[in-house]
Amino acid sequence: MTLHHLTARLNDILCAANLLIWDSRTQMPPGGAATRGQQIATLKGLARELILSTEMRRACDVAVRAAEDLPDAHPDAVAARAVAAAIAHHDRIPAALLQAQAESATVAQAAWAEARAASDFASFRPHLERTVDLARQQADALGYDAHPYDAMLPTYEPGETAASLAALFDRLRDGLRPIYQAALARPAPRSDFLFRDYPQDVQRAFCAELAPVLGYDLARGRLDAAVHPFEISFTRTDVRITTRFNRAYLPASIFGTAHEVGHALYEQGIDPALTRTAHATDMIGLYAVGGTSFGAHESQSRLLEMHVARAPAFWAQHFDRLARHFPDQLRDVTAEEFAAAVNRVAPGFIRVEADELTYDFHIMLRVRLEMALMDGSLRVADLPEAWNAAIASDLGLTVPDDARGCLQDIHWSTGYVGSFPTYTIGNIMAAQIMDHLRRDQPEVTQAAEAGNLAPLLEALRAGVWRHGRSRSRDDILRGMTGKALDIAPYLGHLHRRFAA
Amino acid sequence: MTLHHLTARLNDILCAANLLIWDSRTQMPPGGAATRGQQIATLKGLARELILSTEMRRACDVAVRAAEDLPDAHPDAVAARAVAAAIAHHDRIPAALLQAQAESATVAQAAWAEARAASDFASFRPHLERTVDLARQQADALGYDAHPYDAMLPTYEPGETAASLAALFDRLRDGLRPIYQAALARPAPRSDFLFRDYPQDVQRAFCAELAPVLGYDLARGRLDAAVHPFEISFTRTDVRITTRFNRAYLPASIFGTAHEVGHALYEQGIDPALTRTAHATDMIGLYAVGGTSFGAHESQSRLLEMHVARAPAFWAQHFDRLARHFPDQLRDVTAEEFAAAVNRVAPGFIRVEADELTYDFHIMLRVRLEMALMDGSLRVADLPEAWNAAIASDLGLTVPDDARGCLQDIHWSTGYVGSFPTYTIGNIMAAQIMDHLRRDQPEVTQAAEAGNLAPLLEALRAGVWRHGRSRSRDDILRGMTGKALDIAPYLGHLHRRFAA
Repeated sequence: MTLHHLTARLNDILCAANLLIWDSRTQMPPGGAATRGQQIATLKGLARELILSTEMRRACDVAVRAAEDLPDAHPDAVAARAVAAAIAHHDRIPAALLQAQAESATVAQAAWAEARAASDFASFRPHLERTVDLARQQADALGYDAHPYDAMLPTYEPGETAASLAALFDRLRDGLRPIYQAALARPAPRSDFLFRDYPQDVQRAFCAELAPVLGYDLARGRLDAAVHPFEISFTRTDVRITTRFNRAYLPASIFGTAHEVGHALYEQGIDPALTRTAHATDMIGLYAVGGTSFGAHESQSRLLEMHVARAPAFWAQHFDRLARHFPDQLRDVTAEEFAAAVNRVAPGFIRVEADELTYDFHIMLRVRLEMALMDGSLRVADLPEAWNAAIASDLGLTVPDDARGCLQDIHWSTGYVGSFPTYTIGNIMAAQIMDHLRRDQPEVTQAAEAGNLAPLLEALRAGVWRHGRSRSRDDILRGMTGKALDIAPYLGHLHRRFAA
Repeated sequence: MTLHHLTARLNDILCAANLLIWDSRTQMPPGGAATRGQQIATLKGLARELILSTEMRRACDVAVRAAEDLPDAHPDAVAARAVAAAIAHHDRIPAALLQAQAESATVAQAAWAEARAASDFASFRPHLERTVDLARQQADALGYDAHPYDAMLPTYEPGETAASLAALFDRLRDGLRPIYQAALARPAPRSDFLFRDYPQDVQRAFCAELAPVLGYDLARGRLDAAVHPFEISFTRTDVRITTRFNRAYLPASIFGTAHEVGHALYEQGIDPALTRTAHATDMIGLYAVGGTSFGAHESQSRLLEMHVARAPAFWAQHFDRLARHFPDQLRDVTAEEFAAAVNRVAPGFIRVEADELTYDFHIMLRVRLEMALMDGSLRVADLPEAWNAAIASDLGLTVPDDARGCLQDIHWSTGYVGSFPTYTIGNIMAAQIMDHLRRDQPEVTQAAEAGNLAPLLEALRAGVWRHGRSRSRDDILRGMTGKALDIAPYLGHLHRRFAA
């Protein structure tokens, strides 16, 4: 089989794994959990074996040789290099380590859930120590020059290093602080109406209208409810999203939908010719996904959520529609009041509830701490203290318990180390793209503000989505904006929205 | 890996394929069809490759040798033989033939759908000729002594041959004819109320109550709507059913549910120790299923539908519950009238709408014709004439067009040849089990008639379900009733229900 056939097969396997995951979070009866994990593990194992198979190695060698006659950026050359990198990556991780990580993750997730419920860090500590130890073994196996974190990052955000992120985040923190102080000094808008009684089926009906307004193609997708909103795809023709419905807090479902629509547009917008190719397959993370990095993916979700759906101009267009669904609840509310309320700054302990302005503080804190855990400068035992000190320093808050502190996220218990920075990279990238469009193609952003999203979506399709993984994040940014990742537009956006 | 590990992996792959199938029929947006077929084909291909892998062959040899010291009926010996048979089966079918069949099936199904819509057999004829030709090639590749149909049957109903089925069906037809004549001579019960307006959501609510009454465990399953009702499982802890809702005909959803519950009870009732083993995997058909043959599976669905849910005693217990859901529609109806109406004999053209008594005529017709197509004694061109002659002879009806004649079923267009007999075998087996219980454990059937299904379900669990594929159909029957498949109890049941 050619590399094309082998990667198509790999994509099929990973799309099937994605369906097992989607189903387990949206449809599966409780009993199904007993064997679902094994089914997913089997498919991921088959994918890994396929990547490391003699057939794949041979096909990859042929493709790499053929690529010598092609420009570096030619999609076939990019695919050949991606397969070679995946083979090298999986070759380096011993099966015994994978097995140990899988077993540890199962135990650690259960321990984390119990520890969080009881706010009992001590009971989770040995599991986190084991997780960190295994992550360091993984970094050693993968190899690195400067920092063990550097070995973890290519899985999530190729091109970044501990040093590049530290520099980026130092500048971001410096830039955020005055904006945050200015935002706190502004009078808080009223937000009482967000907490009224919003029946779930009406929220669902509104979200089902909202998703296609934002460009989501329901003929190639569907919207379901889930505890934690997510987007997942089984090729570009079937890209599904979920949101969560909180009867006592309207914004959760609306902006959950907008966020996941952003992810979904990326996947639905990939060039059809890339279907079932290496350009729609994360061969290192073993995941069927067309976005070129976690950060690039997040940029599209944050662009749709923050720059489109939370923009006051959007509610000038669509608040009446929302008010038709909730005539009693929103009787005494204007579009301007609604937009102000959903953009209010409200520093808190919980990352997933954070407003746009304070969100990055939560991310930078985690990145700093996981880097320190990886290089050994922070012991797991000292994590709560370090966490709480950072929240006090960044947000001026006193963490009341570890459930609302270092136990709040599932990530570390699953063995994920290195994915947190991509949330902030997504924010920066989204603002960079929007800023460029505003300056260079003002008709696009003006149309969006006037209620016509089509030119904006087309610009994103042309600049980002269609390329799938055939271009790197920075190549996409350079192609659209002339620059690699640049923090200035993001600080400008936050300043305009929260401090101007 | 040991045989145990390899068959667990095989089961995981085939459970994932089942989920891809379930989703495509219940949840998938229209766009998903573009790549779903390839994803299913990839998983089935991986399953076949695993069966034919060096590792599986080695593990099978070891298991077969170890089985020499075990009794023939020992589950490990049965599993070793089943794996060896699967390897031999798949070894015999050339990859080129498989590929040709897959391609032909895709084209033929589309052609069939168009031909049926237009009632245009001529346009389907070349596709069916190709299908029959490929099926005969398959039979040649698999090998047979007496009849090419013999090569097809082990996939669906191990132990049967063209000759055994011809003899069985001759006796069945002879026995059915007088019952059918007697039934036609009886006055038709009133059935007007079955065709009133029954809103789908109320039907759904009743079916969701009915399924657990019949023993279905919703914590390990779920009930959805589908165009064609089916049951499918992803191990015994997640066994899903669907039914169809016809607003203008109440029985469709109720007895569709009861039928699929019967299938589901078999899968939910398999011994937990058989989970992810060869005893829960059809390694020849490449399907994750715990029932030991298609006929045995159908016996449980027909038992629950015909002997439990259509029994007048059942409605003596449950009609009030139904009438509470439809107080207006069933205001002028008694439990006895309802039971009589859903057991009325109404000969027609369409198999899936046939009543219990005439159903087997539809099956026997198809079996005779597909046998004749396979041995060349019937040309595809002569199929409509042969079909219509049989309907006239068996049911005294004149087929008005091929859409209601030989174009009505999808089976042949998919390349399935040999599965039809299993429907009638299921009917015979269900009656045989019930008849034995009635004679040997009358307290079981009496409890069922009095509304307590627990002893009956426990008898089925002990005698049928728990064994999975570790016992053959006839071993199960001998274990429960002392006899292999026996037609007499079925004729007795039909006589009592329709001619007494």
